[in-house]
Amino acid sequence: MSRPHHKPRRGLGSRLPKGGESMTFPDERYRRGVEVLQRLCGEGLEQIANRVAEIAPDFARMTIEFPFGDLYSRGEIDLRTREVAAIAALAALGRIPQLRGHVASALHVGCTCEEVVEILMQTAIYAGFPTALNALAECHDLLTDPED
Amino acid sequence: MSRPHHKPRRGLGSRLPKGGESMTFPDERYRRGVEVLQRLCGEGLEQIANRVAEIAPDFARMTIEFPFGDLYSRGEIDLRTREVAAIAALAALGRIPQLRGHVASALHVGCTCEEVVEILMQTAIYAGFPTALNALAECHDLLTDPED
Amino acid sequence: MSRPHHKPRRGLGSRLPKGGESMTFPDERYRRGVEVLQRLCGEGLEQIANRVAEIAPDFARMTIEFPFGDLYSRGEIDLRTREVAAIAALAALGRIPQLRGHVASALHVGCTCEEVVEILMQTAIYAGFPTALNALAECHDLLTDPED
Amino acid sequence: MSRPHHKPRRGLGSRLPKGGESMTFPDERYRRGVEVLQRLCGEGLEQIANRVAEIAPDFARMTIEFPFGDLYSRGEIDLRTREVAAIAALAALGRIPQLRGHVASALHVGCTCEEVVEILMQTAIYAGFPTALNALAECHDLLTDPED
Amino acid sequence: MSRPHHKPRRGLGSRLPKGGESMTFPDERYRRGVEVLQRLCGEGLEQIANRVAEIAPDFARMTIEFPFGDLYSRGEIDLRTREVAAIAALAALGRIPQLRGHVASALHVGCTCEEVVEILMQTAIYAGFPTALNALAECHDLLTDPED
Amino acid sequence: MSRPHHKPRRGLGSRLPKGGESMTFPDERYRRGVEVLQRLCGEGLEQIANRVAEIAPDFARMTIEFPFGDLYSRGEIDLRTREVAAIAALAALGRIPQLRGHVASALHVGCTCEEVVEILMQTAIYAGFPTALNALAECHDLLTDPED
Repeated sequence: MSRPHHKPRRGLGSRLPKGGESMTFPDERYRRGVEVLQRLCGEGLEQIANRVAEIAPDFARMTIEFPFGDLYSRGEIDLRTREVAAIAALAALGRIPQLRGHVASALHVGCTCEEVVEILMQTAIYAGFPTALNALAECHDLLTDPED
Repeated sequence: MSRPHHKPRRGLGSRLPKGGESMTFPDERYRRGVEVLQRLCGEGLEQIANRVAEIAPDFARMTIEFPFGDLYSRGEIDLRTREVAAIAALAALGRIPQLRGHVASALHVGCTCEEVVEILMQTAIYAGFPTALNALAECHDLLTDPED
Repeated sequence: MSRPHHKPRRGLGSRLPKGGESMTFPDERYRRGVEVLQRLCGEGLEQIANRVAEIAPDFARMTIEFPFGDLYSRGEIDLRTREVAAIAALAALGRIPQLRGHVASALHVGCTCEEVVEILMQTAIYAGFPTALNALAECHDLLTDPED
Repeated sequence: MSRPHHKPRRGLGSRLPKGGESMTFPDERYRRGVEVLQRLCGEGLEQIANRVAEIAPDFARMTIEFPFGDLYSRGEIDLRTREVAAIAALAALGRIPQLRGHVASALHVGCTCEEVVEILMQTAIYAGFPTALNALAECHDLLTDPED
Repeated sequence: MSRPHHKPRRGLGSRLPKGGESMTFPDERYRRGVEVLQRLCGEGLEQIANRVAEIAPDFARMTIEFPFGDLYSRGEIDLRTREVAAIAALAALGRIPQLRGHVASALHVGCTCEEVVEILMQTAIYAGFPTALNALAECHDLLTDPED
Repeated sequence: MSRPHHKPRRGLGSRLPKGGESMTFPDERYRRGVEVLQRLCGEGLEQIANRVAEIAPDFARMTIEFPFGDLYSRGEIDLRTREVAAIAALAALGRIPQLRGHVASALHVGCTCEEVVEILMQTAIYAGFPTALNALAECHDLLTDPED
């Protein structure tokens, strides 16, 4: 919790920031988000946003700014831990295109195929066997270890 | 789509904003969000964020900034239409505390009790009868028309 | 709420429409639904509808007409099979008030406590252990076999 | 399947029941539903029902009767408001075929592409970014403004 | 993947563990599971597990052991009742590949096409019309009665 | 309920099966599961199972055997990584009692309050703001850092 001066204690409405506290620009969030995506090698994640950008350019930008610029860029946990959480949540919810993007990113930031498989297996406990089986089947090509 | 200069056409990674394009500060988003919440009379919505603010102050701030500062403040659709969509989505997903907050806001920005009831009834089509019945039962006190 | 004469105030079972009110005879469906509910001894199911009837009388009526008057009254499968399906679906979706109502009905139309427990256990396969555990915990009082 | 004479073979719109078949006049609800679907220009919605009609003709009929004949035909809110709620709920739940049908209907009853895009963007708040991105991507062709 | 000798390569049914490999006899559970799958004629269910077996052999084995070896093999309810519950839960949750597998199994253990259609129709009550329509549409080929 | 001697009455941890009861040694899996639970200090997780054990003793046992005895005991990933995945999946799915149990376990195996908060915040991306806010609010007491 690095910004205690933002802690809204007495009703959020009464805690209007006074302005001028910080010189970071909104584009700063976008730039930070792109930087995170480059570290994740998040091509799969970008592809979905790009397709959406044709009909909703502002939303494509927000998809970089909020998840990656605001949340992923925080130092509290490392990118590997973030990707473990991402894969577990996306598999449990059955969001396949994003699951594939984050499985690729997880492998890029240091998870092994076996670790990703193990996390997907574990979702059977929380979301049922069909969810875990479908997640594994849909990521089959990404998780086939070349040296296996 | 008011900001065509943000349209990321050739790969989001290659569309790094050059910085300095805009003078709006990050606090600007928070201020805009609070302004929207005041128009919604969103006390119920603030209460949830306030409780969370004790353990996750940055997230309480983000909950004002992104949903209300970034999305609700856009001019493309009016607040009444946004609240119709909010109620329908939250009822369908069974997110009761937020549904209650947005039902109160919908009534504040001009929806009648009968209109809100009708929207909740309609979710039976998309999410089943239990979902619609539970949404109606959980908002019972908010929807009891005083002059009925 | 255009049809206050449909407001079911004193128990849905006791509020049989008198017929002849309308040329389209919707009451036939309602009457069939009430008949099914009486065979199910569906007091728990009626209670939820009754609470909703105060703010959405037409929807309380539809909740009898469509699920019970239109679907349950069809001869293709017997009420016991319908209750097995109802319990499995409601447990998987985590709709607790309706699950409790249908567990009571299942026991009334001939399922044993052990059979209901077994069906709830089986939802762990499809929806995960937490869903099955919560369903069992929430129906604990209904499923405590008196002679066990 | 006890009522083969209800099997809608050649487009539900063209299969208006002739009336007088039954003393309970269920056809009145069906007729009202078809009338609503014609105002919505709901071809996409009919297509799904038609495919289902081959194996479950009674259910195809109920899909017209309850959602459109019973609920949509009520005067409490206009069709545009109903479609805003439908799109928000269906996007949040990830029901793609029906979302596409109702996006087409929303555009037909007066929503602009930009309004529909805005409603889909807003579901990111309630159901997460993957849900909103997938909804936008799956309706890409319907939402590409010809004059853009 | 520590137990490559469990990798089921040539059809799970044909890969009966030989027993005696381990003092904890986990193979007993696997053997019971395969036996149940043979009674269900669960080829569709095996196919999903087989594809997954290439990247997660232990999980493919667990998918036989826990759902079929531990739960389905219990005597408390018969296989037909289990399949009614399976179809209702899987349709309500929208898990299509597994729904198709269990619809095939339900027909094999004695359910008629009309009964399965009726159970899928009933899920409209609990999970909404889109869920029921999609379940019926996705199982269309399995439920087309040859003599109809 | 065919195996009353498995009914865990006085705390699952204290009910270690004595071994040798059965030729298939299912107790080995149970013993491994209890061992994992002791390392997780999983009292919250045991409480839910214990309440269920009164009506479904075999299922309470399976809840130890499969998730903890079969999956958690595998060496492929450490317990801290498993708890990150557990928290992310359970928060995304809104399974509150189990989320609370695993938040307590995560703190026990070395996660800090700030890390858990960060993982719960991140679920806003995948499952929406209401889900993340509710998860944080429901775990408020567990996540209040004593030295803050």
